[in-house]
Parts: sequence; C-alpha cells; structure tokens
Amino acid sequence: MNTWGHNIRLSIFGESHGKAVGMVLDGFPAGERIDMEQLEREMERRAPGRDPYSTARREEDKVEIFSGLHDGKTTGSPICGVIRNKDSHSADYGTKFRPGHADWTAFLKYGGHADMRGGGHFSGRLTAPLVFAGAVAKQLLARRGVKIYGRLAAAGGIADPQIPREKSDWEALSRLKFPASEAAGEKMREAIRLAKEDGDSVGGVVETVAFGVPGGLGDPFFASLESRIAALFFSIPAVKGVEFGDGFPLSALRGSEANDEIYAEDGRIFARSNHNGGILGGISNGMPILVRAAVKPTASIALLQQTVDAADLRNAELQTKGRHDPCIAPRATPVLEAALALCVLDCCAPNPVCTENGK
Amino acid sequence: MNTWGHNIRLSIFGESHGKAVGMVLDGFPAGERIDMEQLEREMERRAPGRDPYSTARREEDKVEIFSGLHDGKTTGSPICGVIRNKDSHSADYGTKFRPGHADWTAFLKYGGHADMRGGGHFSGRLTAPLVFAGAVAKQLLARRGVKIYGRLAAAGGIADPQIPREKSDWEALSRLKFPASEAAGEKMREAIRLAKEDGDSVGGVVETVAFGVPGGLGDPFFASLESRIAALFFSIPAVKGVEFGDGFPLSALRGSEANDEIYAEDGRIFARSNHNGGILGGISNGMPILVRAAVKPTASIALLQQTVDAADLRNAELQTKGRHDPCIAPRATPVLEAALALCVLDCCAPNPVCTENGK
Amino acid sequence: MNTWGHNIRLSIFGESHGKAVGMVLDGFPAGERIDMEQLEREMERRAPGRDPYSTARREEDKVEIFSGLHDGKTTGSPICGVIRNKDSHSADYGTKFRPGHADWTAFLKYGGHADMRGGGHFSGRLTAPLVFAGAVAKQLLARRGVKIYGRLAAAGGIADPQIPREKSDWEALSRLKFPASEAAGEKMREAIRLAKEDGDSVGGVVETVAFGVPGGLGDPFFASLESRIAALFFSIPAVKGVEFGDGFPLSALRGSEANDEIYAEDGRIFARSNHNGGILGGISNGMPILVRAAVKPTASIALLQQTVDAADLRNAELQTKGRHDPCIAPRATPVLEAALALCVLDCCAPNPVCTENGK
Amino acid sequence: MNTWGHNIRLSIFGESHGKAVGMVLDGFPAGERIDMEQLEREMERRAPGRDPYSTARREEDKVEIFSGLHDGKTTGSPICGVIRNKDSHSADYGTKFRPGHADWTAFLKYGGHADMRGGGHFSGRLTAPLVFAGAVAKQLLARRGVKIYGRLAAAGGIADPQIPREKSDWEALSRLKFPASEAAGEKMREAIRLAKEDGDSVGGVVETVAFGVPGGLGDPFFASLESRIAALFFSIPAVKGVEFGDGFPLSALRGSEANDEIYAEDGRIFARSNHNGGILGGISNGMPILVRAAVKPTASIALLQQTVDAADLRNAELQTKGRHDPCIAPRATPVLEAALALCVLDCCAPNPVCTENGK
Repeated sequence: MNTWGHNIRLSIFGESHGKAVGMVLDGFPAGERIDMEQLEREMERRAPGRDPYSTARREEDKVEIFSGLHDGKTTGSPICGVIRNKDSHSADYGTKFRPGHADWTAFLKYGGHADMRGGGHFSGRLTAPLVFAGAVAKQLLARRGVKIYGRLAAAGGIADPQIPREKSDWEALSRLKFPASEAAGEKMREAIRLAKEDGDSVGGVVETVAFGVPGGLGDPFFASLESRIAALFFSIPAVKGVEFGDGFPLSALRGSEANDEIYAEDGRIFARSNHNGGILGGISNGMPILVRAAVKPTASIALLQQTVDAADLRNAELQTKGRHDPCIAPRATPVLEAALALCVLDCCAPNPVCTENGK
Repeated sequence: MNTWGHNIRLSIFGESHGKAVGMVLDGFPAGERIDMEQLEREMERRAPGRDPYSTARREEDKVEIFSGLHDGKTTGSPICGVIRNKDSHSADYGTKFRPGHADWTAFLKYGGHADMRGGGHFSGRLTAPLVFAGAVAKQLLARRGVKIYGRLAAAGGIADPQIPREKSDWEALSRLKFPASEAAGEKMREAIRLAKEDGDSVGGVVETVAFGVPGGLGDPFFASLESRIAALFFSIPAVKGVEFGDGFPLSALRGSEANDEIYAEDGRIFARSNHNGGILGGISNGMPILVRAAVKPTASIALLQQTVDAADLRNAELQTKGRHDPCIAPRATPVLEAALALCVLDCCAPNPVCTENGK
Repeated sequence: MNTWGHNIRLSIFGESHGKAVGMVLDGFPAGERIDMEQLEREMERRAPGRDPYSTARREEDKVEIFSGLHDGKTTGSPICGVIRNKDSHSADYGTKFRPGHADWTAFLKYGGHADMRGGGHFSGRLTAPLVFAGAVAKQLLARRGVKIYGRLAAAGGIADPQIPREKSDWEALSRLKFPASEAAGEKMREAIRLAKEDGDSVGGVVETVAFGVPGGLGDPFFASLESRIAALFFSIPAVKGVEFGDGFPLSALRGSEANDEIYAEDGRIFARSNHNGGILGGISNGMPILVRAAVKPTASIALLQQTVDAADLRNAELQTKGRHDPCIAPRATPVLEAALALCVLDCCAPNPVCTENGK
Repeated sequence: MNTWGHNIRLSIFGESHGKAVGMVLDGFPAGERIDMEQLEREMERRAPGRDPYSTARREEDKVEIFSGLHDGKTTGSPICGVIRNKDSHSADYGTKFRPGHADWTAFLKYGGHADMRGGGHFSGRLTAPLVFAGAVAKQLLARRGVKIYGRLAAAGGIADPQIPREKSDWEALSRLKFPASEAAGEKMREAIRLAKEDGDSVGGVVETVAFGVPGGLGDPFFASLESRIAALFFSIPAVKGVEFGDGFPLSALRGSEANDEIYAEDGRIFARSNHNGGILGGISNGMPILVRAAVKPTASIALLQQTVDAADLRNAELQTKGRHDPCIAPRATPVLEAALALCVLDCCAPNPVCTENGK
C-alpha cells in the first residue's frame, strides 16, 4: 500500500513515464507557514542532472500544490502536491527484466499490467514527492527545535572516517553538494568516476540524524521508533540495511561498552555516549536519533547481463543504454532525511486533548 | 501501539512481573490444525534457563489458550493465549535507571506510572507470546511449503564463516540448541563464557531465512516486504540493525556484482545469486528471503555503572544483581524466526475473493 | 477484524461456550486510577439474569485483569481483562441455522470450522469485554467532565414520549434497571411480557448521550465523529440502524427547522437547539452528542421456524429451546454507552506533543 | 483522516474554492479496463446545474488522471484523479458561521486557518472524487456480477410507497434523472419547488442496494459489513442516519416477523425475506445488501438566521445569497452508490494467496 503514517498520513502516486508523480499529506497541523523557496531548495537537492556524477536526465521538479495551503499557510486539510513528468525516453525500455530492478517482481505481482517504463511506480522518481512531504515536515519541526541532517558515511566502498558529532558539523556537511568530509569525499567521487567509466555502478551508506527530538516519543514493541523509521527507510528504493546508533558493530561489543551511561544535570537527564542512537525500548531519550541506511549500487549498469524476457519468458541478454546515476547514495541523502523528518513528525503530531469541561 | 499486522492482527500484552503475558492473534484462517506439542517445542527454544550460558531464571512457558481453537483446529475467531508469570524476584529491581534499558524512556513516556519491575512491558519476556504466535503461523506455512529457519551468524564478536545455502543445512542447524557451525559455535560460547566471568555481556547477529515464499508478495514503497519485516524485527528488544540479502556489505559492491542475474528453466524464473535476499522493489521473487538482525549485548551486567535514580533524578551508581543471559542472541533466534513467519503469513493471508455471481 | 480504534486500540476475543471472553485495551494513558467496584457495577448492568424479563442464564461476569494495572492505576501498557465462561448448556445447540443469527454467514465465511455453540464468537456475550473497556474509559472521561448516559427510547414498539434534556434527567434515568420514564416503561415491559408468553421477542431503540465533549473533536469525511461512532455501534450484535441528533426524522424537516442557530455568550459559542446531535461536518461543536441505535428483536425465539441444516444443507424445521432475553434492548443500553465512551476517548486521547527544544 | 479502506485505500483532497479536488485510489487490482465514457456519465449524475431543482452553479467535473492507468487499463499502482475547480464566487462567503454547516466546528478544530470559502474541504464538492472512485469500483464489480443501484426513498417529507424488489426495477429507476416512481417523484419535486420558493430547503432518504454480493464477506464485530458501510456513508456530508434492511422499523417488529427464514434450493441457500438487508452477524449472506441514508435538508438557505461572526465571536445575522440545491438528496444518490461500491470492493478485494511451493 502506498499510504503511510499514523498521526499524519502520506500517500504517494505516479509512474516514472506517466503524466505525473505526487503525494497527499494529511493530518498536518493547520496554520503552519510554508516557505516555498526553501521547499524548492530541498527538491533541488534530490533532483538529477546537477553534477557530472549523477544522471544526465534533467527534470524540473516543480511542485504544483492543489490543496491544503491558503495564503501561504496550511489549512489542516490534506496537502496535495503534483510534479509533472517531462523528459522521458520510453523507447529506452524494453520487455527484458533488468537485474536488480523490480521488473521481475512487478511482473509476478501485476501479471504484466504494470506500466514499467522507466521503472514505473517503482522508480526512484517516486522519491520526489517524498522529499516534498519531508520538506514540509522539516519546516514545522525546525520551528520546534528539531533539525534533521544527512551525510554520506560511505560510497564506492570508501568510508568517511571523519564522524561529525556536533550539530554545527552536521549543518556544515549538509550544505555540501556531496555531503562528505573533503578528503574522503574526493576518494568517493574517484570511486564513482571509475565505476562510471567501466559502465558499472557503486553503492553507499547514508547516515541521518535528528537533533532536538523530545524524549518519550515512540512506543514499546510494534510502534517502536525504530520500527517506524525502519519501515519508512526500507520503503525507499535501493535501501537494503538500516541500523540505529552503532547498529551492527554494536553487536560485537560488550555490554559495558555498549550501554550508554546516564547522568543528570540541571534537572535534566542525558547519556554520556550515544551507542543506542537516541532510542531505548523503542522510545526516544532526547539524545540525537542516529540512523544509517545501506544503499545498494545502482541496478542499471551499461554492462552486458543475463536475464529473462517478459515477452516469452526465455533467457536473454541485456545491455541497458539509459542515462543513470553511477551512485545513487548522494541523491538518496535528502530522501532519507525526508523520511526521518516524517517519522519524527508522525510520532509527535499534536492531537486534540480532552480538556476539563472543554467546549 | 501493541497491535501489528494488516491481514492478520497480533496484539501482545503483559508485564514481566505482573500476572501474565499473552497475545491475541486475529485474522488467522479457520480450519487449521494446531499441533500443541510442536508449539511447546518452539516455546521451549526461547525459554530461559536451559543451558549454563542462559539466565538461571526458570519459567514454565505454559500457554493457556482461551479462544479461537475448537477440537484442535482454528475457528477463524481470535486466538488468545496466556502465559502466567511465576518465578519473579521483584526485590531485585530498584528505582535506578539501568543503562541500556528502557527504564529511562519509560519514565519519560509514562511519567513514572509504568510497572517497570523486571523491565515490565519492555521485558524480553514479552517475546514469549510472539514465539507462540509465530509457532502457530509456522504450522500453517509449513503445510503450504514455506519453511522458516534461523542461525547465529555471529556472537561475542565471532562470526560463523560457514554459511548454509541449502534448505537441509538450515534445517540441521535449527535443530541445535546453539545454532552455529561446530567450530565457530565453540568459539562463540567461549566468548560468552568469558564475558559472563567478567560480569559482562556480549551481543550477536541472528540470520533468518524463509524458503518457499511465493513470488509476488509485498508491495512497492510503504508496505514493501522489507518495511514490514524490518518493522517487526525492530520491535524485538535489543535489535539495533536489520539487513536483507547482503545488506550493508552489498553497499560496498559494484552493481555488476550486486545484481542477481535472472534465468528461466522449465517455465519458471530464478536468480543465479541471492544478494538481494529474495526481495526486489519490496516484492518477493521466489528466492529465499534472507534477513539478518544485529542483537546488542545484554544491557543487564553485573559491573558498576553510572546512572540516575528515578526517585530523585540525581546521579547514582548501579550494580545489577539479577540473573541474566550473558548473550541473548541464541534465545532471540526463535523469536526472529517467529517474526519472519508472521510477516510472511501477513503478506499471503488468503482473503475472500469476489466471485462471478457468487452467493 | 476484532481490533478497533486509532489512538486507543481495543481487541476482543472469545467464544460463548469456550473458556473465556476478554479484551485487550491499548494506548490508554498511564496513571489513571481505576475504581474496580464502579467497574463491576457497570458489568452488572449488562449481565443477564437480573430480572424476570431477561434470560434465565446466569453468568458471573467477574473480570480477571492480567496486565496494565499496578497499584490500582494504569501503567500505560495494554490492559488485558478476561471473563471466564461458566454456565453453558452446549447441548442446547444443534447444526441448524437459527434464522436471524449469524450461524448461516459464519458457515459461509469459516466453512463450518467456527465454534458456533451459543453463537460462538458472534454471541452477545462478547459485549461483556466491551462494557469492561467502556467502563475503564468512562472513569477517565468523568474525571475530565465528560459523562455518558443511555436510555430506552423505545421497546416492543412503544416509544417513550418523555425526552430528557438536562444532564440530571439523564443521570436519574441511568440509575434505573429499566431506563425509561415510568409510564412508558410500564407499557414497554408489558409488551415484552406478552411477547415472551407467545414464545416471541421484541426489539427497541436505545438512545445514548455524551455531555461535556469538547468542541473540535473528529475529522471531516472518513474519520468523522459520526463515522467512528456508527462503525462501533454497528459492530454490536442486533444493531440495524444508527442516527445522530434528529436522524431520520431530520430528513423530513425543512432547513429553517433543522439548522441549529448559533449564539455567543461569555466568549463561548452555543447552539440554541441540537437537531444535529452535537456534530457538524464530522466534528463536535461542544453540544451533547446524541446517538440512537435500532436494536432488532432477539433472533432466538421459541416458535417453530423454517431453516436449513448445516449438516446436509437440506431444509429443516427449528424450535429453539435455550433461555433467551425476549428483548435485548435494556441490556444493550450499557453496551452502547460503553461504545460511545470508547469513541469519545479515541478521539480525544492525549498524544505526545513536540515541544520547543524538548529533551 | 481523509484516507479510507483496508484492502483498497482511498484518499481525497481539495477545497471547494481551491485549485482542485481529487482522489488517490490504491490497492486496485491491475489489468482492469476502465471505460472513461461510462465514468463520466457517473460524474454527470452527481454534477450540479442539470435541472431547475438543483443549484445554478455549473462545474465541469472533468477528471484528469495522473497515474495508475496505462493503455486504458489499471496498472496496479495508485490511481490519482484530479478535478479542477472553476466556477467559484468566493465573495459570496463571509466570516459568519452558517448554521447547519461545518464553519463553526472547522473554526474550533483548525483555529481559523481552514480555507472555508464555499465550505472548503467540508464542501459537498469533495464527493466528486468519491463518485469517481466509486465509478471505477463499479466497473470492476459489474464484471463480477455485482450491481449497485440507488433511489430516492423519500424527499421533502414525501415517501415513495412503490418499493422496487427486482434488480430490473432498480435498474429502470437508476436511469431516471430523479430516481423515484412517477407519482411520488412528482410530489417530491413539488415539495422541493415550494421550499425553494420560500428560500428554504428540504431533505430526503436515499436507499441503495448491491445485488450479487457473494456470501461470507465481512467480519464479526469491528469490521462488520454494517460498520464499514456505515462509516463511509456517515463520512458523506449531510448524512445523519444509516439503517440496514428494515432498520429502525425493524426494531418495532417481533422476532417472528423480523427473522428471515432460510431455505435451500439447488444446493444453495437463500432467505425468504430480507429484513436484515443481506447481512447477519456483520457478514453477507448473498441476499441483496440494502442500506438507507437520511440526508438532512440543505443547510444553506436564503432565510435570515441568527449566528455568530468568527471575526469577533459576536452574535450576528446571516442571510446567505449563494446558489444552492434546495434538496441535495437526488445528487447524493450516486454518491451513496459510490460509497456502497467502494465498501463491497474493499471487502472482496482479491489478495495474494500463499500457494503450495509457489514461486
């Protein structure tokens, strides 16, 4: 299903080579001013065709808002935003299943009826409305002291050894087109360039953080903060792993190393370290929420691959010619930030409260 | 919220030192025979106190079924199973936040009203009803050719280099009390023993697999198989990372290595490798579903730790005396298998279909 | 599905002649004191066998609480309450579909696997856990100035012409065993007595009211207060109609009569009449919420009826011998009050709110 | 929330005087041919300005489809349809709460931020996307033998005594612009005309029916067919009552009259009467589903009314000048049919089924 959320509800729609992609965001509080310029800057961060390393396909990700805004403020009614598709070369796509893509599984699920041109509804293009929704959420959150950032923790097999700790470090990183420290970023770009030259692709790891999330958000078990964040992260194409705090490496530590010691200061409670990524028992503790996502290498490569043709279900060879990002991780960064923003908002969306004798 | 699922619905309840823990499983098809002995064997796999490496606390995880079964078969109505609590030493627990536990965040969320004795509702004891529900699901799935297994991919920092590929290898592993290959299992147990001697604990990585899952299950985006499985996995205490197929390491490969090539044989479609863990675009492709979960080291350790006392919100020292597993990963294995079984069932639960002129 | 609610979640389970019926209530705020005596008085109002007009079947609707309460207060974790079944005569029930009952449709849905003794999961007995959940909700609401009452607006074809307007009138009515005005109540009971003598049954109309509901609760369209209340009311066996304010008769008025004029007093807004039952556009306006439910005549009658036998799908005759209420409407009153209380609570359940710089 | 459904998901958005209204319909099966002409005929049935009795406001309810259709067939991805707003006279609307409308409650809920021009998101105009979604559902259902019809059972206080029983009678009625029997229709129109002359309005009762619904759809309790249908019906503006089968009058009968006797013929089971409207225990029995909805008189009238001005919260007088339907019930008929179609589809939407060894 293409609807997500509990206190807010996000629906996305569209196909890569159809008329448009878009979203409906419901349950968003009324009276929130939306800065459209800032919103477009967020869209721009995800948009393709901005640098030599991303796909040559250019789209103008201009959002047309159909509802939910009035005089620059939210009305409390569903916000519908639509992004029209323009620059598509449908002839680039045939009937052969592209390995690593959803062509095969869409065929199994929809019996050949899905419009799979350009990946159809499975296309990364569907993350544009997600970034739009996240940008709206970010503006509300920022006003309440919650800030969301993202960075490339790794790309092309190169990890960034310089780990930002302070909010200001994250803020500086997030302003970069290629959000990695200078030295590591250089190496990552080189790895991406080499892969591109070979007609190949690479993956990466995107780390996101939310500062200022109040403690006490989330639930034990099925609606744990981790469950909700992971569910949304794994809905983003190419994400194959999600971890919180130290994540997988945490499982190789001892308890005495992994436990974050707790202390009180000025009547408030803090943790001395943040191995648990700001979440204990599924509930936020007020420390920064830290999430990392493994992004697989772009499935579309220019090399010859063995596959099956949907037309006759026979073995076939495939050599993709389309224009594709040799590494999707940089563009995935604002998408994952958007997802984190939506999760935080969903967990802290204000709801009506029953007041004494209220009327 | 403590309710999960779309086509089936699972609710769990209970506190560690309250009267009972239990679950309600709704939407389960009618007429399914339930083998109670097999079910108890599954419960036994999770139960504590079975070997020197697990906690000395002994519980008889006897399930009393209140509804939904008649003459040994499911009725189609909700199945309620209750496991009474017995062996609890509430005096072991004070008001100090135990680092790495949910005591702190429960305090933030529930304002001190939660019954946190023994971890309360956040206790690993709540996974007993989850195993029960999973065991019911497994029996239905096994009859339809779907088999779920789990193993310790790592524990105490020791990875098992021997990776099972065939269903029979998995089946053999799953019969073991300590589900690892002989050589690696030996080393893992040694690491656990050493940690225990030091009053410390270790973590691990649990790998689960589902064989025989039909292709075409799941959805693009928000209800992707990965989203649904990850959400349930992350609801299990101590899980801090989840990955599918090759997961995080996949993000360091090139596309030409990561893409699973596709071929046809006897009119059916297969992949030559399974780097994507049986899921593409959020939908199953018929290959085994492969999920790994990072389990953090047991938060309860016998070493002195710095923390805060909930009674006065002042800094305090804590030395836990309770009986605890030095490594929870082995007991987490059947829990994660149960979670995987429930996810697969939820995605393939048969629903009524509108038939021509039906009456 | 047997789970209901958005901000709170209620699951019910059990079969009439199984071991027990019960409920799990999740999302209930922590720290709410529960008065068990008052709760049992609510259960007593629904319990059968209290007067000559209700069924002779006696049950002790004693609730055992398994979780979610500690030291007499809610913990914030799911509350599980179980009511064991005792006095059942399964021999009273055969394989013939009882007209007006769910035997036939349960057979269609569950293929003969449902435990239909005494109506099984479809039995009115399942309303006992609903009353329990409602009683818990009522206590919280009463502390916040919200009071819920119910009355018999009609029974056996006799309407009560005396319509209570003030809260005190409703309160006085609700204390009666047979909640109708004296004169009309007499006639209703006579109609019930006559039907019973004939081996027949009658229906009725139950009116419920919620005073003190704050304005602004509910949503336009799909989560309108009316949608949410009606959905829960129609889940109660025997309810075949639901109307708000003047309901069906409202549709025969002119707009100038039906519109409730609005006025301001002391900075607050009121309506001069309440034809719309406290709801406009799906949202409460602060006036009393008024809901009426049509309760059909008890389906179990002692008269000979034509039907079909599930055993051979052949035509058959049926003469029910069990002990049954000749009119279920009086016992349905506390059930519908409970449903209204749960709906109001679900709409105004306090949720965490994102605070400036919260930690 | 503006999202509805379990197996299918419908989201609606838009404001009366905003850019557009529209809907996203998700979970709709792939490969279904959509006849756009037939779809527009359904839209035309709801559209205003068609006859002297409906509002003079003319809109071209032209739907632009953004996604989910390819080569005239559904793709399995969300269908987004948008209807642009054109003919609006915002100057007609001021800041005074219109009695009987949601202006007051929207003010309470959204703190004055809602765009309430023309009723904003609460406007009957939002039923246009509902009719669109219902028309899509109807086409799928018709191919599977399920037919949905509606009629005016009453209008302006005049009931239609001629009750259609056969499918062909319903079909004939549904072709009429004013779906009532000739004699009664004449009287209803006269009542509407008189109200209009007086600057007043009237209400009505709309009856809908679904033929060919398979038995066994729905669930006991919270997801009963009645609960699901009523929830959607009550989300439609102006509906204040919903009843199934004989509904409220059923509650005045005796059990011996109300119970539908059951018989078998040619191996199938039928009921001799249909007092229960095709639903027993929340589950369909294969008889026609019968639902009636009470539609209140149009709240907008030309007469002087007492109210409050949102600008200063002071008492004020209001005389609406806009163009409005003196009776909304005829135009509500296709809307309620659409709602019934969506409910039936939601209950019988085909889901993937786990097959033996499936791949």
